[in-house]
Amino acid sequence: KDLIEMQQTKKADPNDPFASEPGRHPALAPSSKKPFNAEPPQELLVDNYITPNELFFVRNHLPVPQVDMNKYVLTVGGEGLKKHSFTLDELKEKFKHRKMVATIQCAGNRRSNMMEVKKIKGLSWGIAAISNAEWTGVYLSDILAHVGLSDPENRGELKHVQFEGLDLDPEKAPYGGSIPIEKALDPSGDVLLAWDMNGEPLSRDHGFPLRVIAPGIIGARLVKWLSKVWASPDESPSHWQQNDYKGFAPQVDWDSVDFKKSPAIQEYPVQSAICEPKDGTVWDDEEEVTVKGYAYSGGGREIIRVDVSADGGKTWHPTELVAKPNQGYNRTWAWTLWEASVPLPKDAKGKKVELCAKAVDSAYNTQPESFKPYWNLRGVVANAWHR
Amino acid sequence: KDLIEMQQTKKADPNDPFASEPGRHPALAPSSKKPFNAEPPQELLVDNYITPNELFFVRNHLPVPQVDMNKYVLTVGGEGLKKHSFTLDELKEKFKHRKMVATIQCAGNRRSNMMEVKKIKGLSWGIAAISNAEWTGVYLSDILAHVGLSDPENRGELKHVQFEGLDLDPEKAPYGGSIPIEKALDPSGDVLLAWDMNGEPLSRDHGFPLRVIAPGIIGARLVKWLSKVWASPDESPSHWQQNDYKGFAPQVDWDSVDFKKSPAIQEYPVQSAICEPKDGTVWDDEEEVTVKGYAYSGGGREIIRVDVSADGGKTWHPTELVAKPNQGYNRTWAWTLWEASVPLPKDAKGKKVELCAKAVDSAYNTQPESFKPYWNLRGVVANAWHR
Ligand SMILES: [Mo]
Ligand SMILES: [Mo]
Repeated sequence: KDLIEMQQTKKADPNDPFASEPGRHPALAPSSKKPFNAEPPQELLVDNYITPNELFFVRNHLPVPQVDMNKYVLTVGGEGLKKHSFTLDELKEKFKHRKMVATIQCAGNRRSNMMEVKKIKGLSWGIAAISNAEWTGVYLSDILAHVGLSDPENRGELKHVQFEGLDLDPEKAPYGGSIPIEKALDPSGDVLLAWDMNGEPLSRDHGFPLRVIAPGIIGARLVKWLSKVWASPDESPSHWQQNDYKGFAPQVDWDSVDFKKSPAIQEYPVQSAICEPKDGTVWDDEEEVTVKGYAYSGGGREIIRVDVSADGGKTWHPTELVAKPNQGYNRTWAWTLWEASVPLPKDAKGKKVELCAKAVDSAYNTQPESFKPYWNLRGVVANAWHR
Repeated sequence: KDLIEMQQTKKADPNDPFASEPGRHPALAPSSKKPFNAEPPQELLVDNYITPNELFFVRNHLPVPQVDMNKYVLTVGGEGLKKHSFTLDELKEKFKHRKMVATIQCAGNRRSNMMEVKKIKGLSWGIAAISNAEWTGVYLSDILAHVGLSDPENRGELKHVQFEGLDLDPEKAPYGGSIPIEKALDPSGDVLLAWDMNGEPLSRDHGFPLRVIAPGIIGARLVKWLSKVWASPDESPSHWQQNDYKGFAPQVDWDSVDFKKSPAIQEYPVQSAICEPKDGTVWDDEEEVTVKGYAYSGGGREIIRVDVSADGGKTWHPTELVAKPNQGYNRTWAWTLWEASVPLPKDAKGKKVELCAKAVDSAYNTQPESFKPYWNLRGVVANAWHR
């Protein structure tokens, strides 16, 4: 239980934009402290189907804002629409509350694995920039209907819903992201504006008082400290939508890259990783090894199978999907935990054993065998077999 | 123009259930004659964004039925619903007509490529069991609303929409398939009951008078010669839904397979293939080769990139997406044709050059590098890099 005590950040230089960061759990290993970015230990990740709030990975792009709830309002509107504003209490009163379990994954998850092929600028995420929680909030589609935007056939030139956060860059521009308007308007898209995570108000690191949960979509679009929702013909103009979080072919480098040529990532492809045993585990006389991990796919696609190999992918063993959601066709927003007892190769004694895992989703999408043909200069959507 | 003259099948034994098959275009190379299954020449495939009707691949599971339009009715209903029937004229009168370009791909497309790893029972499809057409019909969601099934939240235990064809097996049981009810009820799912293909009534081989076009879903569920639409808690009881068209791990063989353990394939994963040059092409002194092909993904996902390699995947070249749909977010139902001028390796003279291609879809799904880790006993969803 002492593991979930909070560690208080020391008070620092008040001119430091990061002077008022919240405390964090000591088990969160930061890949960056300012802004704070950290993932939980991988073995704790698969211990819990619902990630405890204190262990949920943190991905901040900017300093954590301090929100004065006496002044907080959410602005909602769009080109050609009347502008509305809501306090958090008004949102809670006006719209039906919804609960939903959804996994969030950073588009940079497993970047460190991809970096083994070739260096990449960016945070060196391990395999745990992913977590799962139950969110409570209201449907974005209900709010958009309330402000006059409901019928998908009648939305004219509006193609995206942009979000802005209260977190500001050094030029005082907010963090931003957008999602396709089809996803935002579709009740089956299950996009929430959420104030609650696992039965507690959002912590400061996770977006207090309100964040976007657009399930099945990369974390970067799930704007925290949400201040503005804006329907537009255009995607978010933010750096993170326009010039980051896009994939490219492996031959594209920083000299040749043209960010306009690739679409902003929305849905994530199928992913899985082995959380136990950890790299470098040494076995004695065991004939079998227990392997545990997670699997997840974007766009509401369900995990239908995970295979594990103890000989680098020559032969495969089935796994049991030990904890999985039952959320329906193309609305499966939560991850699957899996486990297997895998026989070690007969000749393994004294040698290195290469475990690997690969998942299949309900559209029969698979993970690539290796990173090299899919290396990209931003190190995003790194989903090759985990070895 | 002589290529699109029809070849008349010789009249045969009247006790042969295949005695009254229609004529077929001589360019369609049959992988099976009874039932008739055939694909067009791959080089003709990429000559046309819209596949000419006569060259559209044919996948029949049973003899082609002879439909008497004086007697033809479509039965529509479901458990707990009143049964309705419609003549083709009634369907055309009652419901709004819709046009849509959509690609159909057999789940067995490229099985011959997968067979190079290990033998598979089934038709040895090449790379051309895929074609693209404009379909005219009515929305299945409009018809289901008309018979009392509209609100997705109010559908109780109904989870699937089953289809039956007029084509009968030797025991007089019809061909059948089903799709998830969410896909059927969602107007954005764009499921059509179609009577027209590229401006002409469906030919007998393509399902005259009516077939299902559930775009983004494998051909096997797109029942032809449609006689019955039935909402049910259960999937189609047909052989093809229950004990065929499912994927398995590579270690599963005919002794160990349990068809109940794997979900029926619905959406197809990302696919691409090289149509030109054909295997075995010999070059003289060229420094570059023009490579052409198609790419397609299931579930309405768009093709965002195709990469080509002339050295077996070590280095990659961009391609131009020369013909592609503009159908919107997760409603991209038609394929993309691509083309590239690829430099031949400097040391290629006198040697074999291995071209390969890989596509990326809008959820950043990729094709596996090789078939071995994804071999499956039915030889379905074969989507490794085409070499
Ligand atoms: Mo992220
Ligand atoms: Mo098929």
